[in-house]
Amino acid sequence: MGELLREECGERLDDLQCNGLYLIQDPDKFCFGIDAVLLSNFVKVKKNGHVVDLCTGSGIVPILLSAKTGAKKITGIEIQSDIADMARRSVSYNKLDEKIDIINDDISNALKYINNCSVDSVCVNPPYMKDTTAIKNPDLPMAIARHELLTDLETVINIASKLLKESGKFFMVHRPSRLSEIFASMRQNRIEPKRLRFIHPYIESKANLVLIEGAKGSGVWLDVEPPLVVYKDKNVYTDEVLKIYGR
Amino acid sequence: MGELLREECGERLDDLQCNGLYLIQDPDKFCFGIDAVLLSNFVKVKKNGHVVDLCTGSGIVPILLSAKTGAKKITGIEIQSDIADMARRSVSYNKLDEKIDIINDDISNALKYINNCSVDSVCVNPPYMKDTTAIKNPDLPMAIARHELLTDLETVINIASKLLKESGKFFMVHRPSRLSEIFASMRQNRIEPKRLRFIHPYIESKANLVLIEGAKGSGVWLDVEPPLVVYKDKNVYTDEVLKIYGR
Repeated sequence: MGELLREECGERLDDLQCNGLYLIQDPDKFCFGIDAVLLSNFVKVKKNGHVVDLCTGSGIVPILLSAKTGAKKITGIEIQSDIADMARRSVSYNKLDEKIDIINDDISNALKYINNCSVDSVCVNPPYMKDTTAIKNPDLPMAIARHELLTDLETVINIASKLLKESGKFFMVHRPSRLSEIFASMRQNRIEPKRLRFIHPYIESKANLVLIEGAKGSGVWLDVEPPLVVYKDKNVYTDEVLKIYGR
Repeated sequence: MGELLREECGERLDDLQCNGLYLIQDPDKFCFGIDAVLLSNFVKVKKNGHVVDLCTGSGIVPILLSAKTGAKKITGIEIQSDIADMARRSVSYNKLDEKIDIINDDISNALKYINNCSVDSVCVNPPYMKDTTAIKNPDLPMAIARHELLTDLETVINIASKLLKESGKFFMVHRPSRLSEIFASMRQNRIEPKRLRFIHPYIESKANLVLIEGAKGSGVWLDVEPPLVVYKDKNVYTDEVLKIYGR
């Protein structure tokens, strides 16, 4: 497997602590955070279903979903060619080439590769930040992963809606600060919010992340799940987070 | 004060455990719940400001706000004449007639009494339930307080927006299950959601109430506060709830 990992370029191989899965990452570009792990744990895909992960980055979400769901087919879409290449090598490293397909293109072109209204679940861990005016290096992978430089909320939700079957499920992790925009955009694209879970660093902190489930063409009813608290003490994960991390 | 309380009609006088305030209630009609108390604790009114409480019922929220905020003027609007009369007698019992005004009318007529774009804060604990088809006694006060029989979400938010000054604050307690409708209606009426607090009966329960703050004409940014947990054990309130109840 030596040719898959390019240590000489600064890449490293991380143990995902999940079914013996590994991920190739380049710390100079972007390493996945707790948001990707929590999203993977929140996503539901029906048995033998097809799930599409938009803005897939290193492929962390597709690779975790291969273990955590009964999906038959997982498609990740990533716009940056070097990151998409790294994701493909991670897929091969885990011998998941038959299950996971990585497309290197703008998510706006998703319908060139996947039929509209054909997908059971769409998930996404998109760039969170709207304000792109102060970015010094807008072509750096880190900036692209964090700021809406190459895509935005509206596009993400619009493409998700086009891909999804009627009643198909949409899953996103995002910042609570943007929830009102998220709901507005979901409604505009016929994806009704069905389930929310807020992530609080500590029990007495404001939420800093939110997990959102929607359903295309569904009726109005929203569940707000128990809060997910990350730390019970400084640097000490709660039992729930330890369990999600497989420890 | 004997003439204010009508014990012979089943009314009783409840100690609000807050600044020596009392409330007249009729258990056959409707008694306030934790939602009204939590709302009163969540509302902000600028010093010497004017706050309007829509669907005021027994007047619990205006009476608590007289102690909890620096409001100069508090107006409660209640459509049911006997409930509005009881609220007025509670106001008198507490010698708050100069500060609190109870209007007996449909909230849709609020602009007959109060200038548009003149109010600093509007708050409301409206009927939560949309489905009014199965109600056996739609004229009973309990049904009117719980179900959207005489008003609805859209009307409440529309009237609030008309009453509020630019940048004026809107506060509501409602069911999380309707949050997506609430956000849509707030946006349509130019009230941007700014602050949410979810109420969970237990830390491991779904939220059953949500406190919402909005601001008229404001920019997009939403804070999701730490969860408010009601019970730490069966029938044992958390310290925060005990504090809110003044115990």
